[in-house]
Amino acid sequence: MTKRVYNFYPGPATLPLPVLERAQEELLDFAGTGMSVMEISHRSKEWDKVMSDANSLVRELMGVPTDYKVLWLSGGASTQFFMVPLNLQQPGKPMEYVNTGGWSTKAIKEANLYGEVKIIASSEDKKFSYIPQNIEFNEGTAFAHISSNNTLYGTEWHYMPKVPSDVPLVSDMSSNIMSKPVKVKDYGVIYAGAQKNIGPAGITLVIVREDLLDRVPENIPTMQKWKIHAERNSLYNTPPVFPIYICKLALEYTKEVGGVKEMERRNEEKAKVIYDVIDSSDGFYEGHAREDSRSLMNVTFTMASSELEDKCVKEGEARGLIGLKGHRSVGGMRASIYNAMTIDGVKTLAEYLREFQSENQ
Amino acid sequence: MTKRVYNFYPGPATLPLPVLERAQEELLDFAGTGMSVMEISHRSKEWDKVMSDANSLVRELMGVPTDYKVLWLSGGASTQFFMVPLNLQQPGKPMEYVNTGGWSTKAIKEANLYGEVKIIASSEDKKFSYIPQNIEFNEGTAFAHISSNNTLYGTEWHYMPKVPSDVPLVSDMSSNIMSKPVKVKDYGVIYAGAQKNIGPAGITLVIVREDLLDRVPENIPTMQKWKIHAERNSLYNTPPVFPIYICKLALEYTKEVGGVKEMERRNEEKAKVIYDVIDSSDGFYEGHAREDSRSLMNVTFTMASSELEDKCVKEGEARGLIGLKGHRSVGGMRASIYNAMTIDGVKTLAEYLREFQSENQ
Repeated sequence: MTKRVYNFYPGPATLPLPVLERAQEELLDFAGTGMSVMEISHRSKEWDKVMSDANSLVRELMGVPTDYKVLWLSGGASTQFFMVPLNLQQPGKPMEYVNTGGWSTKAIKEANLYGEVKIIASSEDKKFSYIPQNIEFNEGTAFAHISSNNTLYGTEWHYMPKVPSDVPLVSDMSSNIMSKPVKVKDYGVIYAGAQKNIGPAGITLVIVREDLLDRVPENIPTMQKWKIHAERNSLYNTPPVFPIYICKLALEYTKEVGGVKEMERRNEEKAKVIYDVIDSSDGFYEGHAREDSRSLMNVTFTMASSELEDKCVKEGEARGLIGLKGHRSVGGMRASIYNAMTIDGVKTLAEYLREFQSENQ
Repeated sequence: MTKRVYNFYPGPATLPLPVLERAQEELLDFAGTGMSVMEISHRSKEWDKVMSDANSLVRELMGVPTDYKVLWLSGGASTQFFMVPLNLQQPGKPMEYVNTGGWSTKAIKEANLYGEVKIIASSEDKKFSYIPQNIEFNEGTAFAHISSNNTLYGTEWHYMPKVPSDVPLVSDMSSNIMSKPVKVKDYGVIYAGAQKNIGPAGITLVIVREDLLDRVPENIPTMQKWKIHAERNSLYNTPPVFPIYICKLALEYTKEVGGVKEMERRNEEKAKVIYDVIDSSDGFYEGHAREDSRSLMNVTFTMASSELEDKCVKEGEARGLIGLKGHRSVGGMRASIYNAMTIDGVKTLAEYLREFQSENQ
């Protein structure tokens, strides 16, 4: 019997145990080929099936309309930070961003290389502890960009900003993709590094409306064009086969247990367990995010002193509760409870936090 | 007992069985963490050790001098095709390339975006069946670029071109890295997609001399700067952890069995077994590459008709000899016999080819 801890790391993050078991079982012999999935050609029929299954599962689970392409790309969301403006820029039009934290800030920095960027709202004034409300993007904008969940600060968008109908909304959903249903048709582009909610590190999911593929300038490197990857079904060059394969298994698992709607139910239940501990702690635990902006994925909180926080992290580790240290930009603690985190894990954490409070108050 | 075929795919390609077995064994519990290696944070001490072991192994196996950086990047060699000129360009200076096939051609296409490219030699006149000899790059060149092994055509450089001392030589070693010793100090930059000789798809090894890191222009995307990846020890963003981990295991295995020198001995032995079949077939099998340019990694050959070739591929498959179909640009057949292909695999193939000849002549 394998020892298994509860892993609250912000990403790479915990994966569903049945997915890992399946990967382990067939690691030396994939689909009866006598080869590992890592060893089969990306031009083989066995690989074709993995890719086409992964695509179909994304389409089905997210309800992706037929006029959108599903791409599997390299380089993480950090690469999309420049590929978004590069592929969507329009001469003479500004690009509009909302700044809700570290990842938005990085996305904005890359966009600045390609033209005028307007930051139409920011929550930097209060340490990114909230999502600006009543956001409206402007006419005449090349595209509108948000980060739907903010891993570092534990905030999440719980409403749709207003976007003019001819302005594509772009969302970095790295840390909450498939955690709840979204209407894909409300977006021009959705992108997400896989390593939080849908798989391991090393692969990025990009969903892009077809008409937007034609905006890309001619004279840029081939690998930077969504259009090329769309035309080649993400096989322009050798893709990261193993990460895509694990995503496929995780998507199958998501479907099996009830899909994205069921994920939302679980995620709401899980988040409530932890936020209840915080809210009933009489200030022993202090939530970082404003209540209306609380993330269901990353619960951030602080305590009276960093010594106490360190103690809490350390004693949690000893009990098999791993990865609770907060990001240096917020300090304190953070429990990342993505799709694959179980309700048992969350309840065990809640119990521990209550105990820790009663022992250290 | 797992069924295991002989896999002659050109990449993704066969991996050493002990590496796969080790990965399988610890897939659910890496280094006693109670997590899969896919689930641990890239900022954890356990991951630090994987990266630092992988780096040390590359340095040791290849004899990398201390003034070179070892980087693990995303996006494959196809991404380096533009990152090389982008990071090494110098205003007013041309970039010199030798065109030895499909990959060189793609590299040249990307370089054209950044300035003047001079193709100082090409073997396109004879279907890329040879490596141009006596190559000398010119003074005043920003950098000199070669593709050290050509997967599609089965050719390989067996000598060092002459390069002025102040011109960095850049080599795409994707398909023969660590197949034989090279003097790293003769190169400015070495890059290689991992999926042929050192690991699975999804990770690219880049070895770059430190002084070259400062050539990069300021105003380009962060992810495109080798300098940033060098400063952050390949952890600027979340790296493809699993592919790097498999590379680490494969490098450990390479060291264990005798290092790169032993790989060279094995590769020479393996290649000879197949080329001997071709050379003693009285023209039944026709080698594509000129003798002085024959690759030790990819043996390409044709037969009298494509029907015969198809038959040979198909009957081979039935015997567990997989991936022998040649690339569409050459046609015919190709046996890719990278580091991880065993001498047994090669002997089994040779035996089959002799049999096939006697039955079909």
